[in-house]
Amino acid sequence: MSDYPTVSLIGSGRVAKQLGPALAKKGVKIAGLYGRNRVEAEKLAARLNTSLITDLSDPISSDLILIMVSDDAIPETVNALHPDFAGIVAHTSGSVPLQSISDRYRRGVFYPLQSFSFDKTVVWENVPFCLEAENDEDLNILGRLAETLSQRIHILSSEQRQSLHLAAVFANNFANLMFEYSEEILEKSNIDRSILHPLILETANKILMQTASQAQTGPATRGDMKTIAAHRKLLGEDNTLRSIYDTLTNEIYRRTHGKDL
Amino acid sequence: MSDYPTVSLIGSGRVAKQLGPALAKKGVKIAGLYGRNRVEAEKLAARLNTSLITDLSDPISSDLILIMVSDDAIPETVNALHPDFAGIVAHTSGSVPLQSISDRYRRGVFYPLQSFSFDKTVVWENVPFCLEAENDEDLNILGRLAETLSQRIHILSSEQRQSLHLAAVFANNFANLMFEYSEEILEKSNIDRSILHPLILETANKILMQTASQAQTGPATRGDMKTIAAHRKLLGEDNTLRSIYDTLTNEIYRRTHGKDL
Repeated sequence: MSDYPTVSLIGSGRVAKQLGPALAKKGVKIAGLYGRNRVEAEKLAARLNTSLITDLSDPISSDLILIMVSDDAIPETVNALHPDFAGIVAHTSGSVPLQSISDRYRRGVFYPLQSFSFDKTVVWENVPFCLEAENDEDLNILGRLAETLSQRIHILSSEQRQSLHLAAVFANNFANLMFEYSEEILEKSNIDRSILHPLILETANKILMQTASQAQTGPATRGDMKTIAAHRKLLGEDNTLRSIYDTLTNEIYRRTHGKDL
Repeated sequence: MSDYPTVSLIGSGRVAKQLGPALAKKGVKIAGLYGRNRVEAEKLAARLNTSLITDLSDPISSDLILIMVSDDAIPETVNALHPDFAGIVAHTSGSVPLQSISDRYRRGVFYPLQSFSFDKTVVWENVPFCLEAENDEDLNILGRLAETLSQRIHILSSEQRQSLHLAAVFANNFANLMFEYSEEILEKSNIDRSILHPLILETANKILMQTASQAQTGPATRGDMKTIAAHRKLLGEDNTLRSIYDTLTNEIYRRTHGKDL
């Protein structure tokens, strides 16, 4: 247990509330916690059985500082740290480059690729951790910390991490928007949204076995113009949903048939 | 076992190859099978231990005829049947109205809402069956057949079924297209596509617990303009992916913030 790196936590938002307790539960020593929101920070520090850091510029003694604040607040947070901190200063953001951390410190990234909700406990074994550091020694420290929670460890450059973050917007936010549209269409027709849940699970499970391109089915892939025409009629003219339907249908058609619809 | 309706099957494609053996396995009596593709039909009939129907216009003796052919071929298939068939003539299509079946027969729809692949066995317990008929007696017969495979039975009108089919295109084909985009972005950055699988599963699982609208996260929901600007820069100008990113980001933004981006 004492082999784990010791960490100080900065933040009391969604990531901190999920990651902090998960690390503590695994026996990682939490040296202290700072949060700009004093009330939330006190609550989380108490929950983690650690001391509240009341002034960021106080000397901190741990192997790592994990910065779990909003992307915008990362530089100012780093700048407020004691200049002599000798450990790794790592943030947990998908889109902020390593270089955003002042080079006064050993810099690191400790990015758990997951969509965090306040109300849903994260299953950490399934979460990929994307790590970045400036040398193998620091990568090793970040790796030992990540391994307490998950075996899915990836070492990515800042550029790769930013591409991954963009890809995650498509796979998560945009796919979820498609689920929203489907729920709205069902609601208009008085059909319970749960009817689509098995298909949605199947859609996700399929691409564990094959690429999304191989998994694609439906009227556009088949070139089934009659069904596409019926869908267009159902959607009506001149509205956002119809224009999204047309764009995405054409995209799928083009991938299979090599030309526009 | 003898309480189950007896069925004759028409078709030897994807649906027939999945649904036929599943029904037979449950002890449903398959009275015969017809398929336009004679070779495939003979193979499937042998597999189902049933007789091959060589001429569609021959008298058929069963409670039901299940028509599992492409949407376009449904009317001609129905027209080729013996005019005196006294059972239910049902198709398995999501988008073809009940009225497409000649009113000479007792008409029915037996639509399993699933994306069928040749190479993946369907887990039938999870498949919603959408039924339609012209009276309760016939609905009851279709229901007893569906119940051999699944407890998820829904009675939908042709209009509802068509909306459901459209909703399924969004939830399945379009969501899958988003997965395709994400895989392409990862590939360009030399990141293995499996890194996104836990997030994709989480995205699907989340909406079993809450609506897709409640489940939404990400830069557009947060109004995180800096990340959106970084994504746009990464995507470049004047290409399809960028225009899809802009459209969908704006859609998500509008839903949370009540105005365009």
